[in-house]
Amino acid sequence: MSGSKCSKLGGILLKQVLDSVDTVLFDCDGVIWRGDQVISGAADVINRLKEAGKRVFFVTNNSTKTRTMYAEKMAKMGFKVAEEEVFGTAYCCAIYLKNVCQLQGKKVYLIGNPAMAQELAAAGIQQTGEGPDLICGQQIDWANVPLDPDVKAVVVGFDQHFSYMKLNRALQYLIRQDCMFVGTNRDSRLPLEGGKAVPGTGCLLQAVETAAQQKAQTVGKPSKFMFESLALQFGVDRERCLMVGDRLDTDILLGSNCGLKTLLTLTGVSTLADAEAHEKSGCTERQKMVPDYYVDSIADLLPALQA
Amino acid sequence: MSGSKCSKLGGILLKQVLDSVDTVLFDCDGVIWRGDQVISGAADVINRLKEAGKRVFFVTNNSTKTRTMYAEKMAKMGFKVAEEEVFGTAYCCAIYLKNVCQLQGKKVYLIGNPAMAQELAAAGIQQTGEGPDLICGQQIDWANVPLDPDVKAVVVGFDQHFSYMKLNRALQYLIRQDCMFVGTNRDSRLPLEGGKAVPGTGCLLQAVETAAQQKAQTVGKPSKFMFESLALQFGVDRERCLMVGDRLDTDILLGSNCGLKTLLTLTGVSTLADAEAHEKSGCTERQKMVPDYYVDSIADLLPALQA
Repeated sequence: MSGSKCSKLGGILLKQVLDSVDTVLFDCDGVIWRGDQVISGAADVINRLKEAGKRVFFVTNNSTKTRTMYAEKMAKMGFKVAEEEVFGTAYCCAIYLKNVCQLQGKKVYLIGNPAMAQELAAAGIQQTGEGPDLICGQQIDWANVPLDPDVKAVVVGFDQHFSYMKLNRALQYLIRQDCMFVGTNRDSRLPLEGGKAVPGTGCLLQAVETAAQQKAQTVGKPSKFMFESLALQFGVDRERCLMVGDRLDTDILLGSNCGLKTLLTLTGVSTLADAEAHEKSGCTERQKMVPDYYVDSIADLLPALQA
Repeated sequence: MSGSKCSKLGGILLKQVLDSVDTVLFDCDGVIWRGDQVISGAADVINRLKEAGKRVFFVTNNSTKTRTMYAEKMAKMGFKVAEEEVFGTAYCCAIYLKNVCQLQGKKVYLIGNPAMAQELAAAGIQQTGEGPDLICGQQIDWANVPLDPDVKAVVVGFDQHFSYMKLNRALQYLIRQDCMFVGTNRDSRLPLEGGKAVPGTGCLLQAVETAAQQKAQTVGKPSKFMFESLALQFGVDRERCLMVGDRLDTDILLGSNCGLKTLLTLTGVSTLADAEAHEKSGCTERQKMVPDYYVDSIADLLPALQA
């Protein structure tokens, strides 16, 4: 963008920027892959960054995979990745509940999926069970459905079995004084190929928040929790850290919120026009969604990473 | 409230106010009944207002009953009411789709209930069917679920069978360029006895709006549509009309939006403290939720209605 804060990354600038960082965070969908299709050149970029001595992490709002599942998917696509390098919201939500909410050994009401159930179990947190929760019979006493007295928090992530009964049960738990409320992320849609999309976790969370008349704590981008967990665990210097993503409202905003350098890649959701609109808005909040740099694809980083 | 805009209605003021109106609109739940319990004195109030030559109408956001069902419920409780005097959101939504959206003979995708299906049928509008819409099998191609090519609008009301599949189908219809989007109302909860509550239509509508990234048109209070339909049909003079309700954010705000006199009754959701907080807020929008008058119960109108 000419005269803009946001510069296209290439040539000498690309070398300078890569030299100025020792940690690179990548969003996954729209950045290193689209659905099950790897972005051309992505495996080379990741592997060569590591060979060049950079630390690489993956930060994703998708709550439907465990760390192990992500590492397996990446291995199949040719990335050299350890599970510990992956921060998805299923894992981050579990460690938030364990470390911040102090719920180890306690129980949560889960609107979620099998991956979330697995990460909760790995963190030593019990949950009420995932899967369908449907209406039996015609006359239901909604306000008096059976509740588990041990539940200490309502947790909302992606759930293809979301139902009025689940919404209602979440409300009944949250009406109690001592129930915490945690969501994985606020993405309103999961974008798919060809302009298609399906409803994201943000829709489910919004429904529960509207019923409960309160806001959940979320762990996903742009909330700082995900980065701070990673930074604490691995000792990341935020001034020498680059966040690479395809969404201005999650990836780039996370980077801005945490004081990182930010790089927009144009293989996913947001466009350069979106970034320009934020820049021209004159609104401080929207300025945080303007990236420092952009590339057409992360493959554009390769010229600076040749052996 | 001393020194307040909102006066307790009684004595000479009560007589003056009743003399100054010829039409009275009542909300139902929390005003003339609570669930299945009639408010003591309500039937007398309604019947005597009519005997005194006032026109009486009922305006309710609850979408789970047809006009006929409301008239039957009221008859059992001792009210002399004709179906034409009842404006519920199931009926109002159907006439909105017919008269404003011009969808007579056309089809809508319904997130709703049997009463909505009946009122749609009475208005000559087809719909895709209400009831459960669940997941079959494990692998669902959410973005490519079968859609009905004749659907011209997505309609959202109260639906105890709300599910991720329904949310997704609504999104797929709304992604099309030519699909209208109508909701019955935005109530976040249905309040029940003893401080209990269940999730209201507002939660479901918010989920669909978040997915669709657009706002629905709503017909329920505080939207003016309900009053304007009634006023058009019966020739109501809004300066000689009193709106009686228990909720500041729906009933009283509707009255203010339409230029009616407003009366809060304290047998339902809102309290006098809620009204005072709005009055003291200094916020123009919140001032609209301050009623002109209040009573402890609509039975307090009886002294001015004795034979």
